[in-house]
Amino acid sequence: MIYLDNAATTFPKPQQVYDEVLECMRNYAANPGRSSHDMAIKAESKIMEARQEISTIFNIKNPLNIVFTSNATDGLNIGIKGILKAGDHVISTMIEHNSVLRPINSLNKKRTEVSLIGVNTRGYVNIEALKKEIKKNTKAIVINHASNVLGTIQNINEIGKIAKEKGIIFMVDASQSAGVVPIDVVKDNIDILAFPGHKGLFGPQGTGCIYINEKVNMYPYTEGGTGSQSNLMKQPKFLPDRFESGTRNTPGIAGLCEGVKFIKKVGIDKIRKHENMITKYLVQELSEISRIKIYGGSNYDNRAAVVSFNIDGIDSSEVGYLLNEEGVAVRTGYHCAPLIHGIIGTNYKGTVRISPGYFNTLKEIEKTIEIIKKISTK
Amino acid sequence: MIYLDNAATTFPKPQQVYDEVLECMRNYAANPGRSSHDMAIKAESKIMEARQEISTIFNIKNPLNIVFTSNATDGLNIGIKGILKAGDHVISTMIEHNSVLRPINSLNKKRTEVSLIGVNTRGYVNIEALKKEIKKNTKAIVINHASNVLGTIQNINEIGKIAKEKGIIFMVDASQSAGVVPIDVVKDNIDILAFPGHKGLFGPQGTGCIYINEKVNMYPYTEGGTGSQSNLMKQPKFLPDRFESGTRNTPGIAGLCEGVKFIKKVGIDKIRKHENMITKYLVQELSEISRIKIYGGSNYDNRAAVVSFNIDGIDSSEVGYLLNEEGVAVRTGYHCAPLIHGIIGTNYKGTVRISPGYFNTLKEIEKTIEIIKKISTK
Repeated sequence: MIYLDNAATTFPKPQQVYDEVLECMRNYAANPGRSSHDMAIKAESKIMEARQEISTIFNIKNPLNIVFTSNATDGLNIGIKGILKAGDHVISTMIEHNSVLRPINSLNKKRTEVSLIGVNTRGYVNIEALKKEIKKNTKAIVINHASNVLGTIQNINEIGKIAKEKGIIFMVDASQSAGVVPIDVVKDNIDILAFPGHKGLFGPQGTGCIYINEKVNMYPYTEGGTGSQSNLMKQPKFLPDRFESGTRNTPGIAGLCEGVKFIKKVGIDKIRKHENMITKYLVQELSEISRIKIYGGSNYDNRAAVVSFNIDGIDSSEVGYLLNEEGVAVRTGYHCAPLIHGIIGTNYKGTVRISPGYFNTLKEIEKTIEIIKKISTK
Repeated sequence: MIYLDNAATTFPKPQQVYDEVLECMRNYAANPGRSSHDMAIKAESKIMEARQEISTIFNIKNPLNIVFTSNATDGLNIGIKGILKAGDHVISTMIEHNSVLRPINSLNKKRTEVSLIGVNTRGYVNIEALKKEIKKNTKAIVINHASNVLGTIQNINEIGKIAKEKGIIFMVDASQSAGVVPIDVVKDNIDILAFPGHKGLFGPQGTGCIYINEKVNMYPYTEGGTGSQSNLMKQPKFLPDRFESGTRNTPGIAGLCEGVKFIKKVGIDKIRKHENMITKYLVQELSEISRIKIYGGSNYDNRAAVVSFNIDGIDSSEVGYLLNEEGVAVRTGYHCAPLIHGIIGTNYKGTVRISPGYFNTLKEIEKTIEIIKKISTK
């Protein structure tokens, strides 16, 4: 099978990820931060190693500011619901995933004001328009770094500067960019960064993180046993315990740690270059096919490895079905991002999404293009 | 090492659990319920199989009423915060874990009324006292099935009857009992059952479930992409999607599925009998040691495999340290259950907790007793 659904979950993972998950399960999957026996200490050490490895990728100074979550959605809910209350104003965009739109929409019903900035048909936010939305009660700007529908990479550095200047919390959803596009929480002035472990960072499913700048005062989300201040009925104030209740996914985090180490060994630049190369080739070749419409921009410096398209006259789900028949795995539909489809004109059909990863070869892409050509001439 | 910390996480797991986690990661860890390619369908099928296997253990009629969570704490927060609002009254107990007490305490600050029923020194709730606390606005009773400090098994069947009679939502925290003590959501009138995957059910860490009776109307908790109604900014109303946002932990759930199949093959009764036998032996032998005080009841029909004790004159953490030196893994301290220590008189010292599991042998217990004897005569 040619797996081209890496925007959902990267596959395969580097060998050491599988090895470490198994090693952990077999030898040290006790409760980190709870008991003080050797196995529990080994579990805690591995989790601390993972925090450290992840920190260095994003230039996070204190690894304890990283909270482990079960996926990016979990982290985004912790962040959004942790900072916004009734009367606050939040700015976000029309290209967001439902992991941002649904929590924001739900807060909106409890009287949090929401402004959703439009994007152009290539998916880019107009930063001047964003600036104009800032009000006295603007508490946070929540931005999708790289779109899971169009691959659009927003200029978070510029938006971060604006947020800092105005004293607004800057929260970035790095679901599609973490591990693939460079992110620097200091230079980009990011206060809260949510990302999955199972996508660009090559961890197993069931892992994710949220980085929280210690200056940000957040309500707790999931409350419970933290192994700390156990004699109190109150959630601890300090990170990461404030947001890490219940037993962590130690084998998953152990695997994630190895995924991050793999990325550091290869280098994000090399990964990005490879993905860019095959994405560019894919877009160029698909453009040659007459009945195909490709969405998104053509500047590959600001585009991640996500290619959405449609074949005129064939439903996106039908294209996905036919590709699967030929052994190619892609995703079709709305990709959990409801508002962008109104902008790119795919409201009632969605798109076919090809999302290559570091382990895809040019040969696989060539084969995929060949199959799409065949489908389009049916 | 003699692992006696099974109340935190069971260890080891049956071989097939390790095998299936690896098999899933290597061959079908795509996004369940999202894409429609073969790998995603295989992932979804395995998750559906897990729902079915888990359903049969608890007599849950519709497997779709099972929501996968990342641990029991996650499920307890979903349940507690999903049903209680300002003005509601909730009844719980002094023997609860912080995964119940902290969310309830936090709701209490937002004007949910809370009554915490006391328990006797053996950890049992007085059901008559519980009945007396029921008021007009009592929305829910939240009960710890088996205590992680004393092993006390509450009579959930009787409490369930009372709840049903009064039209009150009955929620059970089965963190220490799921997979070990029989639970029947129909006979026990349980509306919400939260449990971890990584304890008695032999799944990997990073897994858990909450069963929700469809009659219970609950607010969503974590909101985001569900792969369903993707074109809408509202969380779906149906189960399990309403509470399953973001990518699930497919390898973890796949492993959990095999853990549950193992339990069904062996039989819960046999597991319970084995755990009872070694617990009884442990308690009896420890009772013979002069400086030791053991907490909890002596009726093994109503007691799970958790034995808390102290050695007079030696701090519980010191005992844990010495046991670890000798290769025995236990937990010491408050065990994230703050209020029970006031009742059993361990407020400033906590307890040493031995929690045997199905894979522990009588020989390991004998060896452990020998070491404790040695420590106690120091």
